[in-house]
Amino acid sequence: MSELVPITVARGDGIGPEIMDATLRVLQAAGARIAPEFIEIGEQQYLAGHSSGIAPQAWDSLRRTRVFLKGPITTPQGGGYKSLNVTIRKTLGLYANVRPCVSYAPFVRTLHPKMNLVIVRENEEDLYAGIEHRQTDEVFQCLKLITRPGCEKIVRYAFEYARRHGRRKVTCMTKDNIMKMTDGLFHRVFDEIASDYPEIETEHLIIDIGAARLATRPERFDVIVTPNLYGDILSDIAAELTGSVGLAPSANIGDHVAMFEAIHGSAPDIAGKGIANPSGLLLAAVLMLVHIGQPAVAETIHNAWLRTIEDGVHTAELHGTLSIGRPFGSMDFADAVIERLGQRPEKLAPVSYGDAPAAAPRAPLPRAPQARPRAAKALVGVDVFVHAAGVSADFLAGQLVALTVPPLHLQMITNRGVKVWPGGFPETFCTDHWRCRFVGPDGSPITHADILALLQALVARGIDVIKTENLCTFDGERGYALGQGQ
Amino acid sequence: MSELVPITVARGDGIGPEIMDATLRVLQAAGARIAPEFIEIGEQQYLAGHSSGIAPQAWDSLRRTRVFLKGPITTPQGGGYKSLNVTIRKTLGLYANVRPCVSYAPFVRTLHPKMNLVIVRENEEDLYAGIEHRQTDEVFQCLKLITRPGCEKIVRYAFEYARRHGRRKVTCMTKDNIMKMTDGLFHRVFDEIASDYPEIETEHLIIDIGAARLATRPERFDVIVTPNLYGDILSDIAAELTGSVGLAPSANIGDHVAMFEAIHGSAPDIAGKGIANPSGLLLAAVLMLVHIGQPAVAETIHNAWLRTIEDGVHTAELHGTLSIGRPFGSMDFADAVIERLGQRPEKLAPVSYGDAPAAAPRAPLPRAPQARPRAAKALVGVDVFVHAAGVSADFLAGQLVALTVPPLHLQMITNRGVKVWPGGFPETFCTDHWRCRFVGPDGSPITHADILALLQALVARGIDVIKTENLCTFDGERGYALGQGQ
Repeated sequence: MSELVPITVARGDGIGPEIMDATLRVLQAAGARIAPEFIEIGEQQYLAGHSSGIAPQAWDSLRRTRVFLKGPITTPQGGGYKSLNVTIRKTLGLYANVRPCVSYAPFVRTLHPKMNLVIVRENEEDLYAGIEHRQTDEVFQCLKLITRPGCEKIVRYAFEYARRHGRRKVTCMTKDNIMKMTDGLFHRVFDEIASDYPEIETEHLIIDIGAARLATRPERFDVIVTPNLYGDILSDIAAELTGSVGLAPSANIGDHVAMFEAIHGSAPDIAGKGIANPSGLLLAAVLMLVHIGQPAVAETIHNAWLRTIEDGVHTAELHGTLSIGRPFGSMDFADAVIERLGQRPEKLAPVSYGDAPAAAPRAPLPRAPQARPRAAKALVGVDVFVHAAGVSADFLAGQLVALTVPPLHLQMITNRGVKVWPGGFPETFCTDHWRCRFVGPDGSPITHADILALLQALVARGIDVIKTENLCTFDGERGYALGQGQ
Repeated sequence: MSELVPITVARGDGIGPEIMDATLRVLQAAGARIAPEFIEIGEQQYLAGHSSGIAPQAWDSLRRTRVFLKGPITTPQGGGYKSLNVTIRKTLGLYANVRPCVSYAPFVRTLHPKMNLVIVRENEEDLYAGIEHRQTDEVFQCLKLITRPGCEKIVRYAFEYARRHGRRKVTCMTKDNIMKMTDGLFHRVFDEIASDYPEIETEHLIIDIGAARLATRPERFDVIVTPNLYGDILSDIAAELTGSVGLAPSANIGDHVAMFEAIHGSAPDIAGKGIANPSGLLLAAVLMLVHIGQPAVAETIHNAWLRTIEDGVHTAELHGTLSIGRPFGSMDFADAVIERLGQRPEKLAPVSYGDAPAAAPRAPLPRAPQARPRAAKALVGVDVFVHAAGVSADFLAGQLVALTVPPLHLQMITNRGVKVWPGGFPETFCTDHWRCRFVGPDGSPITHADILALLQALVARGIDVIKTENLCTFDGERGYALGQGQ
């Protein structure tokens, strides 16, 4: 028997303590080799003046154990309180949000009785980096950032997850028919990494079609990996489709720390009554056990839980015609799961996580980003964004052409991405925000000093330059999109 | 009787000619006051060397009539052919994509028999402006642009549509809990314009929750208005949920021109057999008639069509146990609709578009963007983005602090939006892409020349500046987001 794995546990607020106690009782009975360390988070910590709901010393435990089983918390009313989850995710670099979404028909009502899928959502980048600027009277901008190491980490995690959890297919969803560079990178990395997992089937869907398929035929999916924003939307759709948001677990995975929790809240209205369903947290603990390399225990608990549900052992919120007796309380439910340890479900599909630990306890996850040779980067131009109200494209172009400093020359102007000079269309509606592309002769390299000389000339004439974007090639390949109509 | 309204008509490819003939036959019999002008688009035009599938002279007709009823087209295999729809949308500024999504249960199979909603999708801006740059070895960027006039146009169109089509509620969906400036603008404009339509109920949902509700309870929605990307995803979800993509019309609306079509393709496999269902195009023509101010004719046709469907008059692809006789051909189906002109459906819900023309024929739609007073804009800093591989945040900060030119000073550095200096976390994974924020003392204004002096100093020391974003206040209000942890 291997040594106990230290884990950090927070009971949380509301129903948190009772469902955590029920969960830990099942884990202990099933022989999970864990050594819990308890920390305090949530309402009392917020009210004690810790703006993120966690005391400074609690971080020590998280950083030491690197595994966090978290109960739901209550954020007090009123301003100034920061989201604990966002703080933990950003601070500890939890790059993967993992959401299994499973139907348990006929025990839970759903229009989609056969679904059993997992959303693996990138959790750190995309539009959620929160870099926004107002640039003119009319125009606001948010940066969407997609990075190669970010893509590599999340895509590799999705394939590793599929392998560890016995799943057969990974679907990637992006909008790379429109965003050829950013979403194109995500798709390209997906194809690259897929080749390391030949036993796993792969597919790519454009996000609009993919979301529509998910909403109408969720049973066709297994694992879905996708950038942050799409994953946010898809994981809420999928959870709702199962009809059982209250049973759903989630994991947030980083290189250093991983956090496991139910997706439901602290339900203060039923707190302390001992009637809450511990299933979401128990299934989160199952994810945790696989993560720390105890898949056999995870499998035993998960199958016993499935058997418990199909035997009609239900807490109050699931109670219906397929339930036996009166609604079970949290602890009685846990005892019913414990009685069934070693049994498998007969109506619902059993799970299988394999025999051997998929990863040594506390070993870091495979670190995807590899040192890659740096590309030869050449500066070939600059997009200068200008704030100018009440002018025409031709007028602005005339001004800019007169001011341009060799070797740069004005190649085009776009407004909201549509080319308006040279050769614009009379119907194009123009805002006060102009993207003016300057390049060197015949695509030859320029210098940062050339750009500064241009900016100097523009600023000296009172042109309101609001931002710049350099145009570069990488190993000779164009690192910028052409304008519509260019 | 008012004069005939000229409209431009393209029969298109594949089944296009037969469904267009069927559609026009119904319009004529119903007394639509239209004068069609025919243009050629599609396969033959592509093959004749027009890269967007439309001959130059056809634009004259579109610009004159300003109303386009378009059959489906076939884009030839092989490269170099541009999307006709994207070309028309960008060229003519069709800012609104309108997609009614209606269930016709039990005549069309669906899990959601009661849905009847319209997606009004912004069609020009957001991430679809196509402005992408690769900035470092690791990082790719796409700009999300949201403009006040863009928001005003689409939101006002949605409310005008609701009013003309007798709809009672408009739901706005954004992600403004994360993107407080860009999506926040869309939400704010929605609230502003809603006050002009007190008879219409309004609500706002965060897009992830909204999409989940749409996927599980579409019957709760009426009109949904949303930015481009979300609208793309939602309109595919909604169309699939109805189970009747083949019956669905769409409109693309601009200030100058509006285009109406079925959402299905040219179906070359059944072309020329006279068996295609003309319903998608016929319902597109209904949208067109309301748009050009002939709502009474539109209502007559739409109700006759609903009666036809519920009477069991079905083309081949809908044929089933509720159908009468053998499958109807395209023209026989049109004749069946014509026989029922003046009748209303008894099982399906009838439509009502009101009595009076909602807009004079060919009058421009209400032009939302209003001249607004320009804000007092003050430059207070700059975000300089730097490409630097293999360095720590502290090392980079040391370099930058040494180079900084008064009055600017380095305030913070973030990597993928997470603050890494001062006071970063050891777990934060850093890419080679650093956002370095410089501001003046105590938030006091700076000048463009100050920024140029800073850039000059950085570039002179070989710092690879990849882009800048000015930090401004507008009427004293901060025009940029704070860094996470700032």
